[in-house]
Amino acid sequence: MKAKTPSESRTVMTDLVLPSETNPLNNLFGGELLARMDRAASIAARRHSRRITVTASVNHVAFNRSVPLGSVVTVEAALSRAFRTSMEVFIDVWIEDRFSGERTKANEAIYTFVAVDDTGIPTEVPPIRPETKLEQERYEAALRRKQLSLVLAGKMKPHDATELKALFMGDA
Amino acid sequence: MKAKTPSESRTVMTDLVLPSETNPLNNLFGGELLARMDRAASIAARRHSRRITVTASVNHVAFNRSVPLGSVVTVEAALSRAFRTSMEVFIDVWIEDRFSGERTKANEAIYTFVAVDDTGIPTEVPPIRPETKLEQERYEAALRRKQLSLVLAGKMKPHDATELKALFMGDA
Amino acid sequence: MKAKTPSESRTVMTDLVLPSETNPLNNLFGGELLARMDRAASIAARRHSRRITVTASVNHVAFNRSVPLGSVVTVEAALSRAFRTSMEVFIDVWIEDRFSGERTKANEAIYTFVAVDDTGIPTEVPPIRPETKLEQERYEAALRRKQLSLVLAGKMKPHDATELKALFMGDA
Amino acid sequence: MKAKTPSESRTVMTDLVLPSETNPLNNLFGGELLARMDRAASIAARRHSRRITVTASVNHVAFNRSVPLGSVVTVEAALSRAFRTSMEVFIDVWIEDRFSGERTKANEAIYTFVAVDDTGIPTEVPPIRPETKLEQERYEAALRRKQLSLVLAGKMKPHDATELKALFMGDA
Amino acid sequence: MKAKTPSESRTVMTDLVLPSETNPLNNLFGGELLARMDRAASIAARRHSRRITVTASVNHVAFNRSVPLGSVVTVEAALSRAFRTSMEVFIDVWIEDRFSGERTKANEAIYTFVAVDDTGIPTEVPPIRPETKLEQERYEAALRRKQLSLVLAGKMKPHDATELKALFMGDA
Amino acid sequence: MKAKTPSESRTVMTDLVLPSETNPLNNLFGGELLARMDRAASIAARRHSRRITVTASVNHVAFNRSVPLGSVVTVEAALSRAFRTSMEVFIDVWIEDRFSGERTKANEAIYTFVAVDDTGIPTEVPPIRPETKLEQERYEAALRRKQLSLVLAGKMKPHDATELKALFMGDA
Repeated sequence: MKAKTPSESRTVMTDLVLPSETNPLNNLFGGELLARMDRAASIAARRHSRRITVTASVNHVAFNRSVPLGSVVTVEAALSRAFRTSMEVFIDVWIEDRFSGERTKANEAIYTFVAVDDTGIPTEVPPIRPETKLEQERYEAALRRKQLSLVLAGKMKPHDATELKALFMGDA
Repeated sequence: MKAKTPSESRTVMTDLVLPSETNPLNNLFGGELLARMDRAASIAARRHSRRITVTASVNHVAFNRSVPLGSVVTVEAALSRAFRTSMEVFIDVWIEDRFSGERTKANEAIYTFVAVDDTGIPTEVPPIRPETKLEQERYEAALRRKQLSLVLAGKMKPHDATELKALFMGDA
Repeated sequence: MKAKTPSESRTVMTDLVLPSETNPLNNLFGGELLARMDRAASIAARRHSRRITVTASVNHVAFNRSVPLGSVVTVEAALSRAFRTSMEVFIDVWIEDRFSGERTKANEAIYTFVAVDDTGIPTEVPPIRPETKLEQERYEAALRRKQLSLVLAGKMKPHDATELKALFMGDA
Repeated sequence: MKAKTPSESRTVMTDLVLPSETNPLNNLFGGELLARMDRAASIAARRHSRRITVTASVNHVAFNRSVPLGSVVTVEAALSRAFRTSMEVFIDVWIEDRFSGERTKANEAIYTFVAVDDTGIPTEVPPIRPETKLEQERYEAALRRKQLSLVLAGKMKPHDATELKALFMGDA
Repeated sequence: MKAKTPSESRTVMTDLVLPSETNPLNNLFGGELLARMDRAASIAARRHSRRITVTASVNHVAFNRSVPLGSVVTVEAALSRAFRTSMEVFIDVWIEDRFSGERTKANEAIYTFVAVDDTGIPTEVPPIRPETKLEQERYEAALRRKQLSLVLAGKMKPHDATELKALFMGDA
Repeated sequence: MKAKTPSESRTVMTDLVLPSETNPLNNLFGGELLARMDRAASIAARRHSRRITVTASVNHVAFNRSVPLGSVVTVEAALSRAFRTSMEVFIDVWIEDRFSGERTKANEAIYTFVAVDDTGIPTEVPPIRPETKLEQERYEAALRRKQLSLVLAGKMKPHDATELKALFMGDA
C-alpha cells in the first residue's frame, strides 16, 4: 500500500462545552473529553485506513488544564505511526479565551486503533511517512510506546525493548 | 484523617448499551466506555474524599473485548491507593451474556483524581487501608504507576524510581 | 425451571444527577427518575429470566424526597416475585449527602415486566425463592398487588381478591 | 382563586420515536414514555397553577400496547382535579399508523403534581371546573384515587375512605 | 388523490427548554429551535402524505425573540401548500409567560419536504384545500416562495416568476 | 476596530453521523444538520467578534444530498461579511465516502448572528477584509442578501434595494 502523510488523516473537531457536560465546578468532565477525543481520533484512523476502526487502547492521559463551561474546544487528531493493522493517533486539545481569542494547549492524548473488515477481522493499513519535525518526533516516540505497551502486556521481555530500556539504563 | 477501606468507595454502575453509543460494528464506542468509567470512578473518589473530585489522569487502557449493542455492562470502581491529595481508582468492567447470564471481564482501567475545595484548590484526602489480597496487590502496584507517571512527566529521575527500575534491571 | 433468589437479579445503578436532568428548582425531574428505575428494573428482570423483557406496568410511585443536582443516586432493583410470564421488581432509590456521605432513602417503586421471545410472545420465567425477611415480606405483598391490579383492570372480582379484601374488611 | 377548566391546561406533545429510545424489540422503552408523560403533565400542571410544579406521585400505569420505532406519538395531558396545593393530571397517549394514519390509544396514566414557590414551599392552586362528560367522570374518580393513595400511605384509615370502601363492600 | 385540509396535518409539539439546549445568555440555541421545528414539520408532512418525508429546504427564518431557559415552547406546524411530490409546511412558534400564562409569538418558519417511498424515490402527495383566511393567504404566498426558490436555484428565469416580479416592478 | 479576514473565523467541525440522528431512511435528519451548522457558525461569529453571539436569521437552505448513517461530516463556517453589529456566516458541508475517501459537497447555508454584551444588547463588531476570490464573491453577495432580507421584512423599499432590483430588472 502507498504511504500516506499525517496531514491526510488530520481531523479537526471544534465545538462548545455545553452545561450537560460539566462537573460541579462548571468544567468539562474528563470523561466527556475522553469521548470527544475518541471520536476525533477514530475519524483520523478511518481517514488513514479507509476501514472501520475500533479503539484498541488509550495511552496515559494527563488532564493539566480545566476546560470551563462555554469554552470553544478544538480537538485535533492525526496519525503518528501506522503498524501492520494498528494505528497510533496523536491528539492535541486547544481551548480559546473568550475575550482575547488566545488559543492555549489544554491536553494531549494518544489512542491506538485497529482497522477491521466488516466481520471485525484486523486488516492491513497503509504505512505512514512523517513530514514535519514534530511529526517525525511523534513517529519515533510511537515505537517506544509500542514497546512499553508490549512489555506491560507481557508480550515482550523488557530486555528486548531496546529503545525503552535505554531510557532507564542511561543513568544507571 | 481516619483511613478508609476500598470497599467504602466501591461504586457499581450497571446499565444497557444503547444504539446511540455504538459504532458501525454495533459495539460500544471506546470513548463511551471511557466516559462511563470516568463517571463511576469520580463517584468512588468522591465517596472516599467527600470532596469535589476532578480527573487528573487516565492510565493506559486496553480494549480487549468488544461490548455489543444491548449488553448489560457493569462498571465497578474502587480506590486502589490514596496519596496526599490524589486518589488512584481501579475500574473493572464486566459484561453478561444475554442467554447464559455468564459474566466475563471486558476491561480494566486506572484513573487518578484530585480532591478539590469549592474554589478548585487541592485538598487532603484520608489514607486507605487495603483489606483483601487483590486490594493489597493493587495498592502496591499503584506506587510503581505513580513513579512511572512522575518519570514520564519529567518530575522524577528514572534512577530514583526504585521500584520501577527493578522491573527493567532485573533481567539486564 | 429452577428457582432463583432475589439476589441473583439484584441490579445496582449508581450515577450522578446532571444539569440536563433537573427542573427549575435544580432537582431531578420525576420523569428522569422513572426512566432510570425502568432501566435498572428491566436489567433485573432480564437477569432473572434471561429473556428480552418489556415493561408491563408501574405501580403507584410516590416522590417523597427531592434529589438535588450533583447528587449521587443509587437505584437498586431486585425481583420481589415471579408469576408465570411476568415478574414484579422492587426498586429502592438512595441518595448520598455530599459531605457526610450519609445515605438516605429517596424513593421506592414497583414495576412489572413480561418476558418475551424474539417475536414478542410472552414466555415462562423461573420461580423465585425469597431468602431474607424483607424479601419474604415483599414476596407476599406482591400477591396482594397482583390482585389489586386485576381488580382495577376488571379481570378479577373484588370478592375473589381474598388477601386484598381483608385489608378493607378488617376494620369494618 | 377563579376556577379553570381542564381545557385551559390541556398540553399536546407530538413527537417521533427515535432509535436511541427503543429496546431490543425496537419498541419505545417504558421508561422513556414515563419521562415524556411527566414532561407533558408537568406543563399542564404549570398551566393550571402558573407555578413551579414538582412530581408528587404516579398512579398505576399499564403498558398495553407497544410503540414501535418511527411512530408518531401524541401525549395529551390535562388536569382532572385540583386539590389545595396538588393537582391530578390525566394523560392519554396515542399512536398513528404510518400508512392509514389511523390513531389508536396506546396508554393512559395519572400523575400528581404539587405547586411550589421559588423556595419549594407548597402553594395554593385554583379550583377546577370540569366541562365535558369525560372530564366529569375523571374529576369524580380522582377523589377515589386520592383516598386510595392516603390509605396506602397510612394517612387515612380504610374505614374513612368512604367512596373507596364501597367498591369492596358492594359485593360482600 | 383526495384533497386534505391544513388542519388534517396540524401538529402541536409543546415542550420545555432544558439547560442542555441554551446558550451563555440562558436562551434556547437557534439551532435547537431549527431542529424542533424540523421534527414537528416533518410529522405534519407525513400526516398529509402518509409517506416517509425528507427535508428539502428551509425558507428564510428570522429569530425575533429569544426563548429563555425553562420556557414552555409550542411549535405548531401545518401544510400551507402541496405541490406534486413536495409540501410546504408553515410553522408558528409560541412561548408562554410563566406567571401570566400569556402566550406570545416567538418565531415562524417555512420548511419544504419531499415525500419518498422506501427506496427514497419522490412520490405524489394529495392536493390541499385551504379553509380559513390565514390558510388561504399562506397557500397563495407559497406559490411566490416556490418561484423565488426556483429563480434563486437558476431553474426559472426571473422574467417568468410572474408573481414575484410584480413585487419589485410595482414601485419602479 | 481592526479588520479581520474570513480565515481568522474559520471553524471546522468534523464528526460522525450517529444512529440517534437519523430518519427512517437512515439519513441524517435535516434538523440535526441545521443544529450542527448553527453551532459551527456561532463559533465562527464569536471568533470574529470575541462576543456572545445569538442567531438572528437563517437564509434559505436547500438539502440537495442526503447524509447517510456512519458518514464523516465536515461543517466549515467562516464570516462572509460583517455589518455594524451583525455578521453573515457562510457554511459549507462536506461528506466523505468511506471507501474512496472522496470528499463531496453536501450542503451550504448562510446564517446571520448578532454580537451582544452580557446583558443581551447588540454591540459593534470588527469589519471584514476578504482575501480570496471566493471570499470576495461571498462578501459581495452578502449585501444583496441583506437587502432582500430588509425588503422582505418591510424595512427597505424594493425600489431602494439597488443591487437586488437589478437582478429582476435586467431581463425585463
